[in-house]
Amino acid sequence: MAGPAESASLPDDGNPIGIVCGAGSMPLAVAEAASRRGRRVLLLGLRGFADPQIERYPSHWVALGQLGRIFRLLRAAGCRDVVFIGALVRPSFGRIRLDWTTLRLLPRLAGAFRGGDDHLLAGVGRIFEDHGFRLVAAHAVAPEILLPQGPLGSRLPGERDRADISRALALLAATGPYDVGQAAVVADGHVLAIEAAEGTDRMLARVAALRQEGRIRIAAGIGVLVKAPKPQQDHRFDLPSIGPQTIEGLARAGLAGLAVVAGGTIVAEPQRVARLAEQHGVFVVGVPSRESGP
Amino acid sequence: MAGPAESASLPDDGNPIGIVCGAGSMPLAVAEAASRRGRRVLLLGLRGFADPQIERYPSHWVALGQLGRIFRLLRAAGCRDVVFIGALVRPSFGRIRLDWTTLRLLPRLAGAFRGGDDHLLAGVGRIFEDHGFRLVAAHAVAPEILLPQGPLGSRLPGERDRADISRALALLAATGPYDVGQAAVVADGHVLAIEAAEGTDRMLARVAALRQEGRIRIAAGIGVLVKAPKPQQDHRFDLPSIGPQTIEGLARAGLAGLAVVAGGTIVAEPQRVARLAEQHGVFVVGVPSRESGP
Repeated sequence: MAGPAESASLPDDGNPIGIVCGAGSMPLAVAEAASRRGRRVLLLGLRGFADPQIERYPSHWVALGQLGRIFRLLRAAGCRDVVFIGALVRPSFGRIRLDWTTLRLLPRLAGAFRGGDDHLLAGVGRIFEDHGFRLVAAHAVAPEILLPQGPLGSRLPGERDRADISRALALLAATGPYDVGQAAVVADGHVLAIEAAEGTDRMLARVAALRQEGRIRIAAGIGVLVKAPKPQQDHRFDLPSIGPQTIEGLARAGLAGLAVVAGGTIVAEPQRVARLAEQHGVFVVGVPSRESGP
Repeated sequence: MAGPAESASLPDDGNPIGIVCGAGSMPLAVAEAASRRGRRVLLLGLRGFADPQIERYPSHWVALGQLGRIFRLLRAAGCRDVVFIGALVRPSFGRIRLDWTTLRLLPRLAGAFRGGDDHLLAGVGRIFEDHGFRLVAAHAVAPEILLPQGPLGSRLPGERDRADISRALALLAATGPYDVGQAAVVADGHVLAIEAAEGTDRMLARVAALRQEGRIRIAAGIGVLVKAPKPQQDHRFDLPSIGPQTIEGLARAGLAGLAVVAGGTIVAEPQRVARLAEQHGVFVVGVPSRESGP
């Protein structure tokens, strides 16, 4: 089982941090957190994915496939440390602009591409490192994006919820070696769903649908969503994350709440997450990673 | 990991076998197989579920909830051995007719009902046994309903398929202790889906949808569906099963084929399954249950 991600903050080397920005609010959260600590930042927004608000910071727009341009922009700004953050859901080929550097690297990229998300990110990470950059975890720059141990908001899991959380953590520890999605829904001891390629939001939608159709007979308000990092996950670019849509999804699925491994899960928009959790009457809690057997 | 189900045929005690029939073609297949062996049968068709063709055999219609009537009919015919076979998907409460025997047993049934499918069947099974009946496995009456080792049809898994099958069997061995659905889709080493409460058909539909949306980047024609019995499954009423709709589903999901644990999986309409597999160019194979670690 993966332990909590290293939480020590990154030492400031005086140079700006390059932040390669995918979709969602996380890139802005990381840029804000780094700026608050007095670190300069350079945001490289992936066109078609990144939030236009990245322009509030020193920034450039880049296309997927412009590795040469990305390397030049980072070097020109003196960046050595680079963070990858934000979602890259379903990139369409029309948005890819291959520059010469990328073309040269295509065989390596194609190899990484075939291997699924984890391998792709690890492969791209190694290419950055071979070009003199250092891949750093978003949470090393902005530790406040990780959910700490304990509840977010006022609600706490009850006794049955805690038993469901333990069972889900044990199950995820068992599936961990198989590089699976690392989230599960357990209700009153019964495993209702395990995430693989579909992602957490779709898994929750499935539980909601099964409940609506009467295929799940356990009463609404019983059951937990648990997320845990994969043991072999490279924490520099890929920790599990939750956000407002996770809370909406678990409320629709009739679950009691959500547990994540403390220090190993990124929370997008924590204030909004806490507010939504209160509204829906669900708990959000950071728990220690599992220590004992099933 | 569950070994192959006991394959010895049931000794004939001279009495008819009671067959409580849910939906689908399996009840008729079991009745036919038992009759071919010279066993008499009495079919009790669950109204709203069982195929009207059960009337080709000595039969009665019963409603869900009529345990007293079921026990009386079985006793009147001299049945001691009882088989439960066929699907009971989403029973609607409108179809339930509670008789006195059932009412008396409601507290026990309610306890079993809360526990999910496996517990429900085991609970109902124990109630039958307490009333003097013997629950027997459908495949003890009709061993030909189990897929044996080797291919069904002419197609064989290739080297990559065999590696995917091993990985899926190892994953299912890891999830086994958690009483999960016991099917998974693995493509080129990547776990695309794990079944829990949704069932195999929906899991395959999910893989098809993810592929269509480009969320799965592995080419069509790569990947296997693997099904294995749960280690704690009571083989007398609940072995994994496949049928024509499984082949349609895996063809739509762009998979290369299907592997099941030989002697541990029921095949509904094997001739139609074989014909559909040929049409779609997919393999169906019985494999030995997994013996070594991951």
